[in-house]
Amino acid sequence: MHPVDLIRKKRDGEELSAEEIQFLAQGAAQGSIPEEQLAAWLMAAFLRGLSLAEVDALTTAMRFSGEVFDSSTLGKFAVDKHSTGGVGDKTSLLVAPIAAAAGLAVPMISGRALGHTGGTLDKLESIPGYRTQLSLKEMESVLTKVGASIVGQTQDLVPADRVLYALRDRTSTVESPYLICASIMSKKLAAGLNGLVLDVKTGSGAFLRRKEDALFLAALMVETGERAGTHTAALLTNMDQPLGHMAGNWIEVWESLELLQGKRDPLSEDLRELSLALAGWMLFLGGVTRTAEEGRQSAEEILTSGEALKVFTQMVAAHGGDTTPLGQPAQFHKPGVSKELCAERSGYLAHIDCTAAGWAVQRLGAGRERAGEPVDPFAGIEWYVKLGSPIKAGQPLCTMFSGQASRFSEPEALLRKALVIADKPVEEGPLIQGIITAENRKEFLKTTNPS
Amino acid sequence: MHPVDLIRKKRDGEELSAEEIQFLAQGAAQGSIPEEQLAAWLMAAFLRGLSLAEVDALTTAMRFSGEVFDSSTLGKFAVDKHSTGGVGDKTSLLVAPIAAAAGLAVPMISGRALGHTGGTLDKLESIPGYRTQLSLKEMESVLTKVGASIVGQTQDLVPADRVLYALRDRTSTVESPYLICASIMSKKLAAGLNGLVLDVKTGSGAFLRRKEDALFLAALMVETGERAGTHTAALLTNMDQPLGHMAGNWIEVWESLELLQGKRDPLSEDLRELSLALAGWMLFLGGVTRTAEEGRQSAEEILTSGEALKVFTQMVAAHGGDTTPLGQPAQFHKPGVSKELCAERSGYLAHIDCTAAGWAVQRLGAGRERAGEPVDPFAGIEWYVKLGSPIKAGQPLCTMFSGQASRFSEPEALLRKALVIADKPVEEGPLIQGIITAENRKEFLKTTNPS
Repeated sequence: MHPVDLIRKKRDGEELSAEEIQFLAQGAAQGSIPEEQLAAWLMAAFLRGLSLAEVDALTTAMRFSGEVFDSSTLGKFAVDKHSTGGVGDKTSLLVAPIAAAAGLAVPMISGRALGHTGGTLDKLESIPGYRTQLSLKEMESVLTKVGASIVGQTQDLVPADRVLYALRDRTSTVESPYLICASIMSKKLAAGLNGLVLDVKTGSGAFLRRKEDALFLAALMVETGERAGTHTAALLTNMDQPLGHMAGNWIEVWESLELLQGKRDPLSEDLRELSLALAGWMLFLGGVTRTAEEGRQSAEEILTSGEALKVFTQMVAAHGGDTTPLGQPAQFHKPGVSKELCAERSGYLAHIDCTAAGWAVQRLGAGRERAGEPVDPFAGIEWYVKLGSPIKAGQPLCTMFSGQASRFSEPEALLRKALVIADKPVEEGPLIQGIITAENRKEFLKTTNPS
Repeated sequence: MHPVDLIRKKRDGEELSAEEIQFLAQGAAQGSIPEEQLAAWLMAAFLRGLSLAEVDALTTAMRFSGEVFDSSTLGKFAVDKHSTGGVGDKTSLLVAPIAAAAGLAVPMISGRALGHTGGTLDKLESIPGYRTQLSLKEMESVLTKVGASIVGQTQDLVPADRVLYALRDRTSTVESPYLICASIMSKKLAAGLNGLVLDVKTGSGAFLRRKEDALFLAALMVETGERAGTHTAALLTNMDQPLGHMAGNWIEVWESLELLQGKRDPLSEDLRELSLALAGWMLFLGGVTRTAEEGRQSAEEILTSGEALKVFTQMVAAHGGDTTPLGQPAQFHKPGVSKELCAERSGYLAHIDCTAAGWAVQRLGAGRERAGEPVDPFAGIEWYVKLGSPIKAGQPLCTMFSGQASRFSEPEALLRKALVIADKPVEEGPLIQGIITAENRKEFLKTTNPS
């Protein structure tokens, strides 16, 4: 098999066999196919698209390109939730302990802040001592003890994706639903999942802003999960504004703790609702309840009762984290400087460019300019308003936290442009805009396949 | 400027500015843009196509990426002929001395055997001592003395093309009319040409087999030449069978010498006719005659009179070549072994897979398996038949020459499949199938642009 032939085939719009896809993925993992050839193939795949069989083959080949986690030794149904990336999205910190408290195992391999979106690992690392880099053996031990373990990708997990992911970033081949699906699903399936709930974002803060693109990606991932024997469902959810009222690292842990403690806040309701819906699907897929709606009710009971908080605290401890700050989150929050942003006019909050708002959070220090840089645990934004809120001129809209005052100017300019106050309130889209399951996935694959 | 942005732009089908194209070409020449990014851009350009302005900008940027030849010091009209690659195509050995004898300067930068096609440099190097690697200074001195100089590309000429050409080979992005045009024209224009005649092959032995593709490439090259201020014309010519009756290295020089000596052979008539037509266009573009047809007549007189032979001999001597073999080409031809291929049935030669026939020539030793390998000067095929020839079973169709008998089996198998003998003769296409000039180029750009 020669890389040039496989590139030519995809270039001409032909379908590659599973063996040919496997040859490419292995070549990427082992470095035996040079990057310029992988890059040409990626661009051809981006522009020509991949068939369902090719996406399946690529996902499988990447999944098994390195070590995999064997969840069968846990003796529990292994389930995970994955989001395509949002702003203020801290649902992982809620659904993992809820599902574990319900008796499921949650081996959650998470990521870091990417672009304008936050990263679960960065949030957890704001807790002093929390180790995200566990070996699979250590993760297994945490799962056995606690039921949930949120960790980073190990060096030996899906090496093919590591190479291709970095290459896509340098070759402008990121936004392909086929390549996104294979990348996400290979990592998730390598964790040995029996069930997977996907949170596919749409709206102004999503990587895929158009609803039809998000629907297609969702259906593609459900299809790929089901082909691999993992029960998979996807929720298409609204990312037109930050989720909850905190966006950053520690402040997101803080907001999660409030909910885990059973508290309610109108500004956190969307976060709470989405977390319960996602957890409900996890419980349903895991056989805990007979429907996702019943799962949602169970999840709410677990959250309200404090059982999920108990699991979360145990998980932090099992990862070497200091649990003291969990009891006094407000006192632990020590940003260098803070600054309020006030409304310039009265009206209603009608639109948020949520991608710009996400960039503001990252530029305050919550994210990185370059891979490997440290992040500021206390940087971020606390919001006082949601879409539709009535606004009075001069009223504070949010507070920015950062390490130094010089970092405020760019985020402030971004936010001024991102927040639109209008005379009349605008109708908002629903939080959950669609559900794609094993049953209905085919219709979305048919109607939205761009090729 | 960032390479990822330029890749994304082309990926999305947008037009790049001349500055952006220049940035890419310079990055290729200087190695400041990594090959995986160039590869992704090449694949995007392959699949999305380039606008006429982009082809122009890429050609210009590659042309000036290294040193260029200044032909103005010669005090003559500088003209060249370039072919897109054929089998048995030795017209360069004829048209260069004809045009020089007519008072034009011919700075001809040629190539080596590529794929199934022969290379002018390999043919000339079958003459003992002939140096193809001259500096531009040395080429200028040969041109001043003799009027024609056939040389190889210097190390510093169009370095951007050298990088991109090698990369296209590894990334299956060769057969793009846009990239082919920019590659050919950048090299030709770097020689400081005032006029250029292109021989664009079509048919079973051409890289672009379909006539509409060849027509489009021809029009694209004429457009690009004219934009650069070089008078350009393209002949679309038939490559359904080897040109003339010899295909190899020295045997092609031999066939050329016969014609230069004024001899005629029915099996060489197509070669003679095409050479005179091409030379006629060179003379017309160079202002020697008022029409291309008059140019053809002048070229025939120069060929018949022996003037072109005189220039050819002087050129060989000026390049350090031994002129003795030129006087006794049959005696100089000393192949290791030879083998006849005889007809298995009677009928008419109805079809030749001329690409396969070209591969047979190369595999006999006339070409290379890998860049840099030496070629066998005496390997090749002498043909006894042309398309349409009546055939009797058992009659010799051709003789194969090689260094060792073990090399016959693959070429013989290729030829057995490539030559089709049928009961009735098949109508042949004309030798010259179209002429694209500054005047009519626009209509072919319009009707055949694939994008």
